[in-house]
Amino acid sequence: MEKANSFTKEQLVACGHGNLLGPNRPRLPVDNMLMIDRIITINQDGGVYGKGEIVAELDITPDLWFFDCHFITDPVMPGCLGLDAMWQLVGFFLGWEGAEGKGRALGVGDVKFTGQVLPDAKKVTYKLNIKRKIHRKLVMGIADATMEVDGRQIYSATDLKVGVFSDTSTF
Amino acid sequence: MEKANSFTKEQLVACGHGNLLGPNRPRLPVDNMLMIDRIITINQDGGVYGKGEIVAELDITPDLWFFDCHFITDPVMPGCLGLDAMWQLVGFFLGWEGAEGKGRALGVGDVKFTGQVLPDAKKVTYKLNIKRKIHRKLVMGIADATMEVDGRQIYSATDLKVGVFSDTSTF
Ligand SMILES: CCCCCCC[C@@H](O)CC(=O)SCCNC(C)=O
Ligand SMILES: CCCCCCC[C@@H](O)CC(=O)SCCNC(C)=O
Repeated sequence: MEKANSFTKEQLVACGHGNLLGPNRPRLPVDNMLMIDRIITINQDGGVYGKGEIVAELDITPDLWFFDCHFITDPVMPGCLGLDAMWQLVGFFLGWEGAEGKGRALGVGDVKFTGQVLPDAKKVTYKLNIKRKIHRKLVMGIADATMEVDGRQIYSATDLKVGVFSDTSTF
Repeated sequence: MEKANSFTKEQLVACGHGNLLGPNRPRLPVDNMLMIDRIITINQDGGVYGKGEIVAELDITPDLWFFDCHFITDPVMPGCLGLDAMWQLVGFFLGWEGAEGKGRALGVGDVKFTGQVLPDAKKVTYKLNIKRKIHRKLVMGIADATMEVDGRQIYSATDLKVGVFSDTSTF
């Protein structure tokens, strides 16, 4: 069966419940921690390294939960949540390719936040380029990514690293 | 007046409401985004660089909100939230030193997650070493940090960068 190359919010939520990729595949977070509303493109051979790319979006509305608590009188999207979206997408990529186990972010090389997401923004776009993938006993993906708000690049991250582990008890 | 060298949860929440450091100082996030229960030590001349250090804690209980949604059947603390705690502490340090304006995370150099925080853990400890501080028109702090769970180091981050801005409209 051909792999799908785009996913709706409903499908991403199903992934979090173990009902999209399959019961032994990594799950996306759900509810407050899911930072993606749709995957526009996901493939295994595109991107600047020819090893795969992902383009995904988050719709911004003033009632998103984090604007209320971050910060009072000064609402701005936490940079860490945009960064987590990038890790979520690397993990999703590995599960979509077939990896079985639990997804764990392992690190990131260099992160820059040069602009902010305010409540009146409309859309955040994540663009990832897969740099390296290992599908052996250890399953790991490494990617570079950017995040745009309404077409303007504001975050960048290099060497986002996610592993998929059948046994996390040794962590 | 001498600056306090430790802070309770109640005081950190007051900071988020603008009632601890003062009305024009940076605010901590509150509620779901506040990732610190107490600051054990904060000073301006300690740490490995002699420019200041911070030690702070988060109590872990199985009912913390993020265990429910990250992930279903596989609860683990999101690495991004431990990282945010580090940025929160760099920002708090600048406000505690007297900076006025809004706190913004600007980036981080290198992040490694080598272990996980499960719901049966008891305590997370953040240890920051201030590396550089600029208190001019631009107010910025740079720090290295580690995070421990029950005494075992599991996260590390270098060059955590936070600025305090009186005007963020140019971002
Ligand atoms: C008194 C304490 C000050 C708080 C310091 C920052 C805490 C973080 O949660 C910051 C962001 O994520 S700010 C949003 C990301 N950066 C930009 C430029 O939008
Ligand atoms: C199908 C999608 C798979 C999801 C991939 C990871 C998403 C992140 O939210 C991971 C963490 O923060 S895991 C916790 C931090 N790392 C460790 C080792 O505890």
